[in-house]
Amino acid sequence: MTSSGLNGVTAGSSGISTVGQEDVGLTYRGYSITDLAENSTFEEVAYLLIYGKLPGQKELDAYKKKLAGLRSLPDSLKTLLEAMPASTHPMDVLRTGTSLLGTLETEGEGGRTAATVGDRLTASFGSMLAYWYRFHSRGERIETESEEETVAGHFLSLMSGKPADPLKRDALDTTLVLYAEHEFNASTFTARVITSTLSDTYSAIAGAIGALRGPLHGGANEAAMELVCSFDSPQDAEKSLLHMLEARRLVMGFGHRVYKNGDPRSPIVKELARQLSEAAGNTSYFDISERIEQVMMREKAMYPNLDFYAATAYHMCGIPTAMFTPVFVIARTSGWIAHVIEQRADNKLIRPLSDYTGPEARPYVGMGDRG
Amino acid sequence: MTSSGLNGVTAGSSGISTVGQEDVGLTYRGYSITDLAENSTFEEVAYLLIYGKLPGQKELDAYKKKLAGLRSLPDSLKTLLEAMPASTHPMDVLRTGTSLLGTLETEGEGGRTAATVGDRLTASFGSMLAYWYRFHSRGERIETESEEETVAGHFLSLMSGKPADPLKRDALDTTLVLYAEHEFNASTFTARVITSTLSDTYSAIAGAIGALRGPLHGGANEAAMELVCSFDSPQDAEKSLLHMLEARRLVMGFGHRVYKNGDPRSPIVKELARQLSEAAGNTSYFDISERIEQVMMREKAMYPNLDFYAATAYHMCGIPTAMFTPVFVIARTSGWIAHVIEQRADNKLIRPLSDYTGPEARPYVGMGDRG
Repeated sequence: MTSSGLNGVTAGSSGISTVGQEDVGLTYRGYSITDLAENSTFEEVAYLLIYGKLPGQKELDAYKKKLAGLRSLPDSLKTLLEAMPASTHPMDVLRTGTSLLGTLETEGEGGRTAATVGDRLTASFGSMLAYWYRFHSRGERIETESEEETVAGHFLSLMSGKPADPLKRDALDTTLVLYAEHEFNASTFTARVITSTLSDTYSAIAGAIGALRGPLHGGANEAAMELVCSFDSPQDAEKSLLHMLEARRLVMGFGHRVYKNGDPRSPIVKELARQLSEAAGNTSYFDISERIEQVMMREKAMYPNLDFYAATAYHMCGIPTAMFTPVFVIARTSGWIAHVIEQRADNKLIRPLSDYTGPEARPYVGMGDRG
Repeated sequence: MTSSGLNGVTAGSSGISTVGQEDVGLTYRGYSITDLAENSTFEEVAYLLIYGKLPGQKELDAYKKKLAGLRSLPDSLKTLLEAMPASTHPMDVLRTGTSLLGTLETEGEGGRTAATVGDRLTASFGSMLAYWYRFHSRGERIETESEEETVAGHFLSLMSGKPADPLKRDALDTTLVLYAEHEFNASTFTARVITSTLSDTYSAIAGAIGALRGPLHGGANEAAMELVCSFDSPQDAEKSLLHMLEARRLVMGFGHRVYKNGDPRSPIVKELARQLSEAAGNTSYFDISERIEQVMMREKAMYPNLDFYAATAYHMCGIPTAMFTPVFVIARTSGWIAHVIEQRADNKLIRPLSDYTGPEARPYVGMGDRG
C-alpha cells in the first residue's frame, strides 16, 4: 500500500530524539528540550548529540577550544567563496563549501571520522557564510578567526565585524539548541539514505543541506520573515491574512507533520523574540507576528512551529533573512552527524519500492514509426 | 512497525520504470530494457525519460545538437576543478561541480527548468571529469568541446584526447542505456526526498551523486573491478573466492534487493564485455569474471547484477576504474531528472517516523553533577 510522503511510516530505529511523544514531547537523548534550552549552551548540546552524553566542565572546555581551533578556511575554499556570485543563495554556499571541503579534508584520512568532520563543519560554517557575505556585500576579505568563545558569538561577530552583543549572542545560542535535532525530518532522513549506501559524511551533509533548503523544510523561517515583513501593522496583517486564507494560500511557519498540539519549541523562541524586540525598543514585527498567531489559531486551529518566531528573533539579532536557514544548518549539523553515526552502527541500505502508475509494457517503436 | 531499510515498503507512486515485475521485468516508460538496449541510443533514452516519449528523427537530431552545445564549462568551474586535489574521488568532483554550477546557472533564471538543468548536467559531466582528470594526471588544460556527436563519444574522446573508437563508443552508449533509470533506488529516492521539500534540482542531483557514491550502490562497479583485478587466473579466482565466501565476506556485484531471479541487464552487459575483450585480443578479465559468476551461482545461488560485468566492459573501454561510478552518474542523471519532475508534479513532503530506542525521559543533570 502506498503511504504518500511516508506519512506515519516508521523507516527505522533511532535513539537520538523523541518528537511529540505523549507526555514526553521533544527530547534529545532523554533530556527535555525545555530543560536543555534553559540550562545548556549549544556546545553542550552538540556534544550530547554527537558524543552521546552531556559533557563535564573539563570536556566542555576542551570541546569549545577544539571548535574554536577549527574556524579557519583553506585558501581554495576562499577562492570558491569569492567565485560564487553575490546573488547565490547562502544555502548553496554551504552545500558547495561542504562538498569542496570533502575533497580537501577527506574523511578517513588523518583520522577524520563522522564526528570530527561534524565538528569541523559546525565550527567553520559561520566562517564560510561570513567570508562569502562580506566579500560580496562589502568587498572585504575577512579573517575568519575571532575572539568569541562560542559558535553563536563567532557567527555574529564575523557577520558584523564587531564583538557579539551578549543578549543577541545568547538568544542565538538558545535557538541553535532548539534547531539542533529533530528525528527523521526530511534533511536528516536524506543524510541517512545517503549514509546507508556507505557513502561519506560530506555527501550526507551536502545532501541534507540541499533538503533543508526547501521552503517546506528549513526554508520556512525565511518564508515566515517575508510574510511578517509584508505587513505594516497587526491590523494590516489580520486583514491580509484573512484574504490569504480565503484564497487557500499556504501560510509558512504554521502546523507540523508530527506535532498536532503545538511545537514545544515555539513558546521558547517566542519569548526570545519578545525579549530581543523589547530590548531594541521596536516590537513592531513581534506584534505583527503575535497577531498572525492569534488569527491562525482562531481561523484554522493551527499552531506556530519553531520557524515562525525564529524569523522575528533572527531579524532582531541583525541576521539577514537569507541567512536564517544557513543558521539552521549550523545547528542541525550536530543532529545530522549523530544520525550518520547511528545509521552506520547498524546499517541497512534504504531502498523502498514504488507503486507503478505508468504505461503498460508495450512493443518497441522503431524510428520510422514514431509520431 | 519498523521495516529496516524500507525493504518492501512502497514510498510513493511512479510511472517511469518497472523493476522486476512478473512477466515484465525492467521497463522504461513501458519499453523493455532489452528492446531499448538493442535499438536505442542513450540520447533517445534520456529524451524518453526526461520528456516522456521516444523522439522522432527531427526531435532526436535537435536534442543531440542541443546537448552538444552544452558541453563548455564556466571559468570559475574550471578553477574549482583545478583546486580539487588529484587524490579526490571523481564522484566528489561531480558532486562539487554540480553544486557550484547551481550557483552559476541558477534554476528558475533564464527559463531554466529541471529538464534543462538535467540536459546541461548530462552534457557537461563528461567535460568536468575529463578536464579535472587531464589537468591532474597530465598537467593539461583541455578544451571541453569535441567533434563527437554523442555523450558516450564525447566522454571517451575527451578522456583520451583522441577520437572515440566506434566499438568502445557504442558499447559505452549501450551501458548508459542500461544505467539510465531504476525506480526508487537509494540515489533516486534521495533526489525525491530532497525535491519533496521544494528544493532545487541541483540540490537533488548533488544529493543523489552523494548516495550513488557508496559501495552498496553505484560504487559496486568499482569494487567489482578491484575484485576481478585481484586475481591472476580463473583458477586463482575460484580458490580465493571460496576462501572469501567461507570468511563470509561480501562479494560486490552480486545479488539485488529487488531482482530475485537475476538482473535482466546483466546478460546484455556481459555480451558487451565479451565483445570488447575479444576485439582487444585479451579475455583474461572476462574469463576471471565468468568463473566468479559460475562459483557464485554454484555456491550461493546468486546472480551477477549490472555492476559486475560493467566493470570488465568499462576496463576494456579504457576507462580508469575510479571513473566507473562517475560514468553511471552521466547515465542516471536522466532518470533522476525524470523523478524530480514527477515528484514535483504531485508533491508531498517525504518525512517518515522512527521507532525510538534511546534513553527514557530523564531529569536534567546540572554541570556540577555530571560524571
